[in-house]
Amino acid sequence: MTEAKAYAAQSETSGMTPFDFQRRELRPDDVRIDIDYCGVCHTDIHFAENDWGASIYPVVPGHEIIGRVTAVGDQVTGFKVGDAVGVGCMVDSCRTCTACNAGLEQYCQEGMVGTYNGKDRHDGSVTYGGYSDHVVVSDRFVLPLPEALDPAAAAPILCAGITTYSPLKHFGVKAGDKVGVLGMGGLGHMGVKFAKALGAEVTIFTRSESKVGEAKQQGADHVVVSTDEQQMAAAEGQYDFLLDTIPVQHDLTPYLNCLGVDGTHVLVGQIDTIEPSIHTGALIGKRRTLAGSIIGGIPETQEVLDFCAEHNITCDVEMINIQDINTAYERMKKGDVKYRFVIDMKSLKG
Amino acid sequence: MTEAKAYAAQSETSGMTPFDFQRRELRPDDVRIDIDYCGVCHTDIHFAENDWGASIYPVVPGHEIIGRVTAVGDQVTGFKVGDAVGVGCMVDSCRTCTACNAGLEQYCQEGMVGTYNGKDRHDGSVTYGGYSDHVVVSDRFVLPLPEALDPAAAAPILCAGITTYSPLKHFGVKAGDKVGVLGMGGLGHMGVKFAKALGAEVTIFTRSESKVGEAKQQGADHVVVSTDEQQMAAAEGQYDFLLDTIPVQHDLTPYLNCLGVDGTHVLVGQIDTIEPSIHTGALIGKRRTLAGSIIGGIPETQEVLDFCAEHNITCDVEMINIQDINTAYERMKKGDVKYRFVIDMKSLKG
Repeated sequence: MTEAKAYAAQSETSGMTPFDFQRRELRPDDVRIDIDYCGVCHTDIHFAENDWGASIYPVVPGHEIIGRVTAVGDQVTGFKVGDAVGVGCMVDSCRTCTACNAGLEQYCQEGMVGTYNGKDRHDGSVTYGGYSDHVVVSDRFVLPLPEALDPAAAAPILCAGITTYSPLKHFGVKAGDKVGVLGMGGLGHMGVKFAKALGAEVTIFTRSESKVGEAKQQGADHVVVSTDEQQMAAAEGQYDFLLDTIPVQHDLTPYLNCLGVDGTHVLVGQIDTIEPSIHTGALIGKRRTLAGSIIGGIPETQEVLDFCAEHNITCDVEMINIQDINTAYERMKKGDVKYRFVIDMKSLKG
Repeated sequence: MTEAKAYAAQSETSGMTPFDFQRRELRPDDVRIDIDYCGVCHTDIHFAENDWGASIYPVVPGHEIIGRVTAVGDQVTGFKVGDAVGVGCMVDSCRTCTACNAGLEQYCQEGMVGTYNGKDRHDGSVTYGGYSDHVVVSDRFVLPLPEALDPAAAAPILCAGITTYSPLKHFGVKAGDKVGVLGMGGLGHMGVKFAKALGAEVTIFTRSESKVGEAKQQGADHVVVSTDEQQMAAAEGQYDFLLDTIPVQHDLTPYLNCLGVDGTHVLVGQIDTIEPSIHTGALIGKRRTLAGSIIGGIPETQEVLDFCAEHNITCDVEMINIQDINTAYERMKKGDVKYRFVIDMKSLKG
């Protein structure tokens, strides 16, 4: 066992406080990683504060992990001490079902094991995430970090990046397609970068006229203010694909109506009941599809890291120390971050 | 102008009664067709009784038309007097938009012109459908009937057939796929035949244990009683594709949960708000898609006629005289038809 320093939520109202625990001894397929950077995802807040009623305390969040290998198990051949690596949202799955065999571990029939708040398949312990000085992860779920990527800015690729890249690729977004990105946060701003890199004509939908300039800075070709009826009417039927990163309940119908024939609206942000509900006519009338997608499999997570290196894409990040995490959460709740906080884990040693 | 005999609804409570009117003179691209058979679609009832608030009286329903050509306009080269032909749900569209150019006239940007209760694009008159002795239709929307098909049993292919065939083809159902068909009416029983012909393993979902035998007779490989919790639990995650022909509001979630990763649930029956609404997790958790589809374009309608001839597929029909149409509507409302009424239009002359 190795002593680990971390920050954890001890209850839904405790906020994040220092927490020491033991990481497991290396299993034959394990990689031990000293964590340099960890991105801060809105899901971290949901688990810290038990918004989904599924939190197991203490919760050590963090699933956008970048670090360096410090030790490997006997059977590990793909990594060696000193390698720069990443760990995303999963640390295990059944590895034998159809989904796992297809490299879609996120859709494992037995359920993926989350990087935190998951249950280890071998000893039943609760997994602790990246708000800690080191982590031990089975090699299948460890990703080599391309040298060309800035490590700190690469961290959010492991969740915000893959979550937006995967549906763009899976649903076949290609050069010339008209893509709308709903929401301008950590996910949305990565979605814009990927859709642009794939050659699409990209529109950001935002509720506020005051954010038009910012949306353009994000690289959008066009901006539609979704609260402006005239702009929304002009957008009707114009889009091939909508990447919906909005994390809260919202009326889907005005956006569905922006899709043309065979258009696809993919939900990646909202985990909730669709409210107000939709009329089937919004789908049937143009053979539209409404879909959902969660992160991406391990092979595709490697692909997005390589894609980012090739296309010089990184996340726009604001670096913080771990001691500032509670303030960061409060700012995130107000949407006050451009566009992802990343914790410099050196601060944990200070 | 030519004198036409027909049956029409004069108001939402009138029922269907005899009605005489004038069909237009042939335009250069028109085909005049003496109608032999006309299928009875549930949509006919919706328009006769103004269920959707869009009826323009008098309503002459009927969009599953089989007949013989009696005259052609000057510019018509594809048809000659005596040809056996069909007319489905559309008689015109803009013919210039992207959808029309792709042979997807049902998704025309300016809206397709329905075979009845539509508005003629040239003179603004309201279209009258197939519950009449003859019809005049632009040649683009007239379909040659393959000789191998029994004309009476072929009529419902023009709506019930294409409505179920098109999504199976569009969404790529193929040999070995596990397909569930929801609903056992005019649409559902055609869906089973097509899915089987495409090589799929087909399950009918029915609410009633008493209908299991009937479902097997329809050719289903398996039957799931949707009101049986154990059977539904066993079906979870098992299907690649669900063809949902249920014409009324129903809870989609138990069916969505029957889809595996990347499964597709296509709505073709219900024109209403989705109630109860769905939770995004039902889509996101397995990258499922919910889609809708309406009939099919003219090229694909020809394709399904040819497919039926090749695979010896026809609709299971019950022949009626036009004088029995009100009784037929009442029986359809109770689900008492196996599986489609077809009017023998000779009865109109009697």
